[in-house]
Amino acid sequence: MTRPDDVTGASDASPRTHASVRSIGAGAPVLAFDVGGTDIKSGLFDADGRVLGLRRSPTPQVEGDKTSAVIEQLGLLAAEVRAEHPEVQPQAAGLVVPGIVDADAGLGVFASNLGWHDSPLRDLASARLGVPVAFDHDVRAASWAEHRLGGARAYENSVVLVIGTGIAGALLVGGEPYTAGGYAGEIGHSPVADGPTCACGARGCLEAVASAGAIARRYRDATGITPDGARDVIARAAAGEPAASDIWDSALDALTLSLAQLTAVFAPEAVVIGGGLSRAGDALFDELRTRLAARLSFHRLPVLVPAELSGNAGLMGAALRARELT
Amino acid sequence: MTRPDDVTGASDASPRTHASVRSIGAGAPVLAFDVGGTDIKSGLFDADGRVLGLRRSPTPQVEGDKTSAVIEQLGLLAAEVRAEHPEVQPQAAGLVVPGIVDADAGLGVFASNLGWHDSPLRDLASARLGVPVAFDHDVRAASWAEHRLGGARAYENSVVLVIGTGIAGALLVGGEPYTAGGYAGEIGHSPVADGPTCACGARGCLEAVASAGAIARRYRDATGITPDGARDVIARAAAGEPAASDIWDSALDALTLSLAQLTAVFAPEAVVIGGGLSRAGDALFDELRTRLAARLSFHRLPVLVPAELSGNAGLMGAALRARELT
Repeated sequence: MTRPDDVTGASDASPRTHASVRSIGAGAPVLAFDVGGTDIKSGLFDADGRVLGLRRSPTPQVEGDKTSAVIEQLGLLAAEVRAEHPEVQPQAAGLVVPGIVDADAGLGVFASNLGWHDSPLRDLASARLGVPVAFDHDVRAASWAEHRLGGARAYENSVVLVIGTGIAGALLVGGEPYTAGGYAGEIGHSPVADGPTCACGARGCLEAVASAGAIARRYRDATGITPDGARDVIARAAAGEPAASDIWDSALDALTLSLAQLTAVFAPEAVVIGGGLSRAGDALFDELRTRLAARLSFHRLPVLVPAELSGNAGLMGAALRARELT
Repeated sequence: MTRPDDVTGASDASPRTHASVRSIGAGAPVLAFDVGGTDIKSGLFDADGRVLGLRRSPTPQVEGDKTSAVIEQLGLLAAEVRAEHPEVQPQAAGLVVPGIVDADAGLGVFASNLGWHDSPLRDLASARLGVPVAFDHDVRAASWAEHRLGGARAYENSVVLVIGTGIAGALLVGGEPYTAGGYAGEIGHSPVADGPTCACGARGCLEAVASAGAIARRYRDATGITPDGARDVIARAAAGEPAASDIWDSALDALTLSLAQLTAVFAPEAVVIGGGLSRAGDALFDELRTRLAARLSFHRLPVLVPAELSGNAGLMGAALRARELT
């Protein structure tokens, strides 16, 4: 249930980031918020679909239920960006959060690092912001943005996989998110091995073996050396270091097993892979393509493509969802 | 790619079977055919939805492409049942077959034990029978019947799993079959282990470890004793015989792994299990429930329920599909 994010390389530690965000296209101006365990990305999308006042600010760290503190922070961020851009009048807001999300009911059902249980986030945010709020799961919103604007554009049935600190996924069926009441897409928490124990309490979850976070952690546990993220472990494996090679090889095997299960059962046309680990590029994609083909037979192999929207897909998905209310 | 069927116990060897078939409800009279590698089930459903002239006849065994021989056999079976019941005028026919099926295009794409490749079965059958033909995959049609009339009635998102000689599956999304061009639902051919090699060419497929056929075969290979089907192996395991216990335990573990993957990623409300192995009853269902709960954590567990339509679900699904044309 950890939140996928970029942990393999240097992170953008500046409070205000101006990383490239694609236009979401023309439409009503909307606010967008992507709340994570560590930080909140926020921005105001104008009538041309360009983002204004994009920033990343720390998620309030308080004891117990963080709901009120988070909602208050959204209000402050909204006031700030609206003061900077008084000419842009948002008609709605999009809010996306991690964990188990019941988008229809507007509830944050559970998020291990945000402390809420069945919290009516949509209504609370709407009351605080004074506009209608569209509410969704962060990775499903990101996958929606990848489907509308990014790497999954060409595919009706696809899976978006975000591999970072954790591993999260989202399914698109017939071009629409498939949610199953918020429980679908937990590819990171599907079993691939008999160990190790995962943060979620189950054992042998894909996330515990093959996330960028797990790769770095497993290397540290095996060698006593703290690597500079998963990317460092992959580089050490490429250089022939046995401990790194074993860990990277087992991570690739675990990812292949999950992709093979997905291919056999769900048969997506494409699997779009984002998150920090996807920046490993060919070292990841070529290996997965080769291993997946070797693991299956008559099956229709999905194309494996990198996500295109980088760390901003969740925010863009929030904005797209907000547009649907206008 | 073997066809799931009842192989655990005594089979109904009579050419004409009168096993109970539920009414499919009122509607136009239709012919229905469920073609397998070994036999063809056929029947004429009347305006009350009751089956007439239900029979099981051998699939023509000829060298090479069996398409023409199968189509000719369907014509003969249709003529026979229509002669017996001249008062019932079928308006359409339903034809379901195993393997990879492109229902939209009317093609039997591939079936290892029926020898066809991209065969236009729908059009050939329609020309021979003189009525419009609805064409579908046997297990997806069976799952459709289970959804409309049987064990999956109450669930919008469910998986139907048929565990017999092989293992086949079908997904229902929002109450509709999810096909992905015919490639979805191949749960039997998703990897769960590093071996043995499966008939499909891949290694460690669920079907090669945990189908009724595999359980019997693995016991024979381990002991030199040919068991009376998987049911016999399960009985020997219950009696404490170590070889049987090991095989049954590993089959349950493999089924649990696949169900855990399904639960995490697709989050069905229900998994409906049919085929010969499902007759193991509590020995199967209670074990799977316990092991699945132990393998997962925050996930929403599906209910595991037995299929209700027994060996006739495919035929009933064919009839339901035919009704859609009338």
